[in-house]
Amino acid sequence: MGNCIVPYCDGPKSTNIRWTLPAVCFVWQTAMIILFGVFVRYNGESDAHWAEFKMARNITSDIDNDFYFRYPSFQDVHVMIFVGFGFLMTFLKRYSFGGVGFNFLVAAFGLQWAHLLLINADFCVAGCLIAYGAVLGKVSPVQLMVMTLFGITLFAVEEYIISDLLHARDAGGSMVIHIFGGYYGLAISWVLYRPNLKESSQLQGSVYHSDVFAMIGTLFLWMFWPSFNSATCDHGDGQHRAAINTYLSLAATVLTTFAISSLSQKHGKLDMVHIQNSTLAGGVAVGTAAEFMLMPYGSLIVGFCCGLLSTLGYLYITPFMEKKLKIQDTCGIHNLHAMPGVIGGIVGAITAAAATESVYGKEGLVNTFDFTNEFKNRTPAVQGGYQAAAMCVAVCFGIGGGTLVGLILRMPIWGDVTDDNCFNDEFYWEVPDEEEIVVPVLEYNNHMTPNKHTDM
Amino acid sequence: MGNCIVPYCDGPKSTNIRWTLPAVCFVWQTAMIILFGVFVRYNGESDAHWAEFKMARNITSDIDNDFYFRYPSFQDVHVMIFVGFGFLMTFLKRYSFGGVGFNFLVAAFGLQWAHLLLINADFCVAGCLIAYGAVLGKVSPVQLMVMTLFGITLFAVEEYIISDLLHARDAGGSMVIHIFGGYYGLAISWVLYRPNLKESSQLQGSVYHSDVFAMIGTLFLWMFWPSFNSATCDHGDGQHRAAINTYLSLAATVLTTFAISSLSQKHGKLDMVHIQNSTLAGGVAVGTAAEFMLMPYGSLIVGFCCGLLSTLGYLYITPFMEKKLKIQDTCGIHNLHAMPGVIGGIVGAITAAAATESVYGKEGLVNTFDFTNEFKNRTPAVQGGYQAAAMCVAVCFGIGGGTLVGLILRMPIWGDVTDDNCFNDEFYWEVPDEEEIVVPVLEYNNHMTPNKHTDM
Amino acid sequence: MGNCIVPYCDGPKSTNIRWTLPAVCFVWQTAMIILFGVFVRYNGESDAHWAEFKMARNITSDIDNDFYFRYPSFQDVHVMIFVGFGFLMTFLKRYSFGGVGFNFLVAAFGLQWAHLLLINADFCVAGCLIAYGAVLGKVSPVQLMVMTLFGITLFAVEEYIISDLLHARDAGGSMVIHIFGGYYGLAISWVLYRPNLKESSQLQGSVYHSDVFAMIGTLFLWMFWPSFNSATCDHGDGQHRAAINTYLSLAATVLTTFAISSLSQKHGKLDMVHIQNSTLAGGVAVGTAAEFMLMPYGSLIVGFCCGLLSTLGYLYITPFMEKKLKIQDTCGIHNLHAMPGVIGGIVGAITAAAATESVYGKEGLVNTFDFTNEFKNRTPAVQGGYQAAAMCVAVCFGIGGGTLVGLILRMPIWGDVTDDNCFNDEFYWEVPDEEEIVVPVLEYNNHMTPNKHTDM
Repeated sequence: MGNCIVPYCDGPKSTNIRWTLPAVCFVWQTAMIILFGVFVRYNGESDAHWAEFKMARNITSDIDNDFYFRYPSFQDVHVMIFVGFGFLMTFLKRYSFGGVGFNFLVAAFGLQWAHLLLINADFCVAGCLIAYGAVLGKVSPVQLMVMTLFGITLFAVEEYIISDLLHARDAGGSMVIHIFGGYYGLAISWVLYRPNLKESSQLQGSVYHSDVFAMIGTLFLWMFWPSFNSATCDHGDGQHRAAINTYLSLAATVLTTFAISSLSQKHGKLDMVHIQNSTLAGGVAVGTAAEFMLMPYGSLIVGFCCGLLSTLGYLYITPFMEKKLKIQDTCGIHNLHAMPGVIGGIVGAITAAAATESVYGKEGLVNTFDFTNEFKNRTPAVQGGYQAAAMCVAVCFGIGGGTLVGLILRMPIWGDVTDDNCFNDEFYWEVPDEEEIVVPVLEYNNHMTPNKHTDM
Repeated sequence: MGNCIVPYCDGPKSTNIRWTLPAVCFVWQTAMIILFGVFVRYNGESDAHWAEFKMARNITSDIDNDFYFRYPSFQDVHVMIFVGFGFLMTFLKRYSFGGVGFNFLVAAFGLQWAHLLLINADFCVAGCLIAYGAVLGKVSPVQLMVMTLFGITLFAVEEYIISDLLHARDAGGSMVIHIFGGYYGLAISWVLYRPNLKESSQLQGSVYHSDVFAMIGTLFLWMFWPSFNSATCDHGDGQHRAAINTYLSLAATVLTTFAISSLSQKHGKLDMVHIQNSTLAGGVAVGTAAEFMLMPYGSLIVGFCCGLLSTLGYLYITPFMEKKLKIQDTCGIHNLHAMPGVIGGIVGAITAAAATESVYGKEGLVNTFDFTNEFKNRTPAVQGGYQAAAMCVAVCFGIGGGTLVGLILRMPIWGDVTDDNCFNDEFYWEVPDEEEIVVPVLEYNNHMTPNKHTDM
Repeated sequence: MGNCIVPYCDGPKSTNIRWTLPAVCFVWQTAMIILFGVFVRYNGESDAHWAEFKMARNITSDIDNDFYFRYPSFQDVHVMIFVGFGFLMTFLKRYSFGGVGFNFLVAAFGLQWAHLLLINADFCVAGCLIAYGAVLGKVSPVQLMVMTLFGITLFAVEEYIISDLLHARDAGGSMVIHIFGGYYGLAISWVLYRPNLKESSQLQGSVYHSDVFAMIGTLFLWMFWPSFNSATCDHGDGQHRAAINTYLSLAATVLTTFAISSLSQKHGKLDMVHIQNSTLAGGVAVGTAAEFMLMPYGSLIVGFCCGLLSTLGYLYITPFMEKKLKIQDTCGIHNLHAMPGVIGGIVGAITAAAATESVYGKEGLVNTFDFTNEFKNRTPAVQGGYQAAAMCVAVCFGIGGGTLVGLILRMPIWGDVTDDNCFNDEFYWEVPDEEEIVVPVLEYNNHMTPNKHTDM
């Protein structure tokens, strides 16, 4: 099909990735094998010396292996990364293969690289997938791999500064994942600005069934977000509370998203873009404070505000950013991740600063904020300050890192498409012909619209 | 697009929900925040005072927090509510946005309201989503919100009567959820009877891919139904048994559904409506008795009968109800929920009445039926009677409540469509143009059907 | 619709299954009920005598019921069987109903039959669903039921020989499931060779959205494969390790699959067939050795090789098998299951033979390979030999069993289609008309392609 309808060329800007993509995949995967061979071993809970490990730790039973208490939450997060993010990005009419397929590639590479640099591999990958949302349909798979390589590396440094040096708490990653990932993607998109993108505008939209596919992504993200925000919490009340707070915040977001979406259109019609994206903003914004004593009504308030702001973002901020700031944001990650992430950072800082022993209990306060060892004299007020500092670190890493990586990606060697060929799977995928509709169309000509032929 | 093809008007019956839907969403979400602020606090397992709570209860380890033993089942139920019910209702050719989107809105509101009135929020919401199935495509989102507000309230009262006053057991909610939700929806649909619905008949059907989307809903409901029926059981054998019984009943239902569906058509062809819906009836019907000693073969028998009856329902009862009783049931919830729910209530009453100490063990009998405190002298035979009484309560609440709410919904202020505009997303959603098919259709004109143009 | 467009006939080869399919379903389901009535009872963990059971085993708490430590993994496997396999087979443009629908029927029957013969019902069903992949679109549902009946029976015998007699380890079923299922399906397809299949070639391909549906299957299989390979392991380090090894192997497979897929096409375009299938091969190949001390880098190496070989299989081996060996393999199960299964068997044998006390620890070695009772004197080297023998058993059962069952399926009574009517839902399903596209097509006639009508 391709050749005759949508010509691609090997001319001024080639999209041929026949050598670059395999080269990147093979070289990096080989590097992973070597690095894993040198650095990665099973931990005590998964090593065959578990019998000795158990004895040393006074663990009495095989069913006390942490596997049973982490694995269900891990699997929920896994679904978010691959089905959630993947299908959320299938909404474009002719970029569904790229949305779900490149998400798959990026996540599978990213989690290996993340394993080498730190622990929570699936989490860390989320930052890069968020960034992908800003440049969806405008970059080549090779560029995505480069984005991921640097993104995970930057994430590892940023996370070390925020968690270890600043000792800021960020259970659901409002700051380390969403602020960083959001601004990282926006900065890259800004550097890669495409002045003639409107020539691809015919493809920059959805069709009926691609919107339904995207709802698969939305719902799996929405449902499992409580697992995401609670997955890495310490066992006990904090993890339990993180799930509850996220659940409630997300529920409130849905109602205000529907409200603003309806309000914004002349006849009150709802816009699928808002429903697919803004309904998730409450999960982002409650991320940092999810394990704190935010209180159920506090979670609802956070969700309420985020549904409202995120939908207004799609209506007013995204067009403004595109026109005035030259930032083209395909999925609107500024409204779904960056801005709610900042809200989440602020909520986290305030909630931390306002923590008291009467609300948390003496032991609860220490456990929740991990005021132990060198941090045992830290007060909630001081913690609030460090939370705010952490937010600034995340913003800086996102914007700074994204700008640098964007410059690398501007090199003309990565096989990206021209401005008038964006959002088109045709260039990187074998796209099937649509022969299937022959039979029904013929039939409808006979049965359904008799006038059509007779009036010719 | 909309304006020229499918005109909506602000005339006699306006579908403009620009003010009503946002108003309902904002006011109710604000009310939720206030009520949560006054009434809702974390429980002992999720409060930061967990350290004191643990000590008071002699809980030795953080991993004994109930979170780890409830959360995986809860997440399965969560998937059923949002993906299962949501995608099951995408089967209509032009109401997929409404099916999955309004399901999302209703569930997100309903679970907050349910939280205030009782505990099992996701469960309770299921009743309202069942009712939505009867009126799918015929009501406005504002009407759905009203249905949900009253539905959850009625559910709370009904559940209190059945569980607390009658002390009836209903692990999977055959009575409290399915009978109530089913008759609630059918009664509303009866009051809202649309005499000229056949003028929308062009849209009251599926297309190829909308049927495949609906199968996503079917399968997630089918797979996680064992979690649904066992999620609220007491820990131990009862929960384990509820999962097994449901699993087996559902498996049997699939075979008899395929059998009757094939038998009913001249050439033995299967009907997607049956496969999408009737295969689930076994999960409904085994709900009450799931935690009882129904025995594996008993579960198979229940499933066998339900697949058979539910499919026959689609073939004979639904058309009868529509023509003679003036009850229009879009998704056939009578066959999937109401009727199997009644079977479930009867099976539960008989199984309870037939319980003996030899089958359950002395302690097992007390645990299973919770014959403690003021109920410690109740016998299985008496319990059977109360189970039957509970079923009647559920039917009455469903029919009575649905009739009253239906009358409220007949007020001409809710923005619903006229009879000839049902099942059409066009009125409440921005629906994308289908430009994507231009290229393939052009191509097929050239390649595939050369005769079409030449013979004109 | 059907009648006028795609005629089916009651002539020489009738596809009418109106009596055979219901008969098979009813008779077999009735047989299941009787057999369950005679043979199947609740086990100690799910029987109401749990109180006595607990006391006898010194189990102190209800939350030590094995339900809580098996059920989450079981549910993941359940999703793989019904959504994973089901949606993976929706990729054909006009066989999505058959792909997901017959998968549902086969699995629901198979798991009951498996329950009677052994324990891991969902696992065992996987073998038959793999075999379905080879004959997708070419057999009737009645033939599938027969295939499943014999397939599960053969599996039960094979699994007894491999696990009990040979005492081979096969945590993820590389041999007992994938080798057996793969060759079983290929042998059946070989016996049922269709010489004129190319006349159905118009339908033997995908359309844009059917490829996206298939990605749902791919991703749920990919994500939950760690659960599949670890679900039946003993509790503790082995289960934990099996999940980690599978996770890593699958990640590596993705990169090499993308690499070879891109390398194989002139302009480096990716092929959805490879992405949907070959990315899963690493999960198959790591199955046997998943619970061994394969080491993280070892898992990556296995995944690396499998992505490469599986994709090359789609490019070269599948066409070769079709042309030279007369084996028509619709889904390419040879590349996804049979061949990676053999690799998995070999990796398992080598890893077992190379096991040492220094790597596993004394107790770890005994636990991992279960060197207890009559096998307490077995050495790793001998175990490696038995692993290799097990692989041969699996191959023989697959090829031998498949050939015999294929001969049974060649009888002209099963209602299968002729060679020129394969891959078409039209014969076994009521397929909806495509009326939905009337409005958009009309509109595009007016707006998008003005020339089309004017030049007529």
